[in-house]
Amino acid sequence: MHLVMDGYGADPKRLQDEALVHELLEEYPDAIGMTKVSEPFVYRYDTGSVPTDWGVSGFVLIAESHISVHTFPDRGYLNVDIFSCKAFDSEAAVRELKGRFGIDSVKTAVLDRGLEEFAENRPASDLPVGASGITLS
Amino acid sequence: MHLVMDGYGADPKRLQDEALVHELLEEYPDAIGMTKVSEPFVYRYDTGSVPTDWGVSGFVLIAESHISVHTFPDRGYLNVDIFSCKAFDSEAAVRELKGRFGIDSVKTAVLDRGLEEFAENRPASDLPVGASGITLS
Repeated sequence: MHLVMDGYGADPKRLQDEALVHELLEEYPDAIGMTKVSEPFVYRYDTGSVPTDWGVSGFVLIAESHISVHTFPDRGYLNVDIFSCKAFDSEAAVRELKGRFGIDSVKTAVLDRGLEEFAENRPASDLPVGASGITLS
Repeated sequence: MHLVMDGYGADPKRLQDEALVHELLEEYPDAIGMTKVSEPFVYRYDTGSVPTDWGVSGFVLIAESHISVHTFPDRGYLNVDIFSCKAFDSEAAVRELKGRFGIDSVKTAVLDRGLEEFAENRPASDLPVGASGITLS
């Protein structure tokens, strides 16, 4: 289960707070029953050619999945991916993220990935690239 | 632009090859004009409660985005995310991945994320959580 969230109108101060991003990546896997297999990695990016593209990026590897965060303080925008082999409450996750970063509005999608890995008969031929194969729910 | 790909029927030997995952994460950002801001991190996971859930996970942070890979050799399955602020040729990326891991069939989606970050008027009220807000193309 893979939650992708784009958040708009977020608090710029919180979006540039590396400690806040680290805290999320440290705490959240436990909160939804996932096992961290790396320490959180948090990086402040400000060397790009577009001045408003600076921000904080963070990532933590969990068992066969991950959580990532990329923030853009000057735009009040961030994106978060929570990708887990286990199901989790995506609405609770979005509420949690909105609270932590003071997010005004969100767009989200939940991707059910890898559903065919248990299928007995996999198609030998390729599915067309770009076909809507990854289920949105 | 965020390419999510699930690959099935892949070569188990390649899926367990940490060097191959590292090589992809090392080379691919340059190949599509992205700037790595971390070294690739590759981890072999085999401590879970489900024996067939072992595999290789890898991640590299690129400027305000990332590439991630999670493989499941016993299932011939892997998933890859290529998330970039810049547009890239997603069909070429899928071809590249299929070649590197001997993938039989894929399911893919391309998410256009953050499109509203440039919008003049952001909605003050929240969009309903779970609304199909992240455009699939």
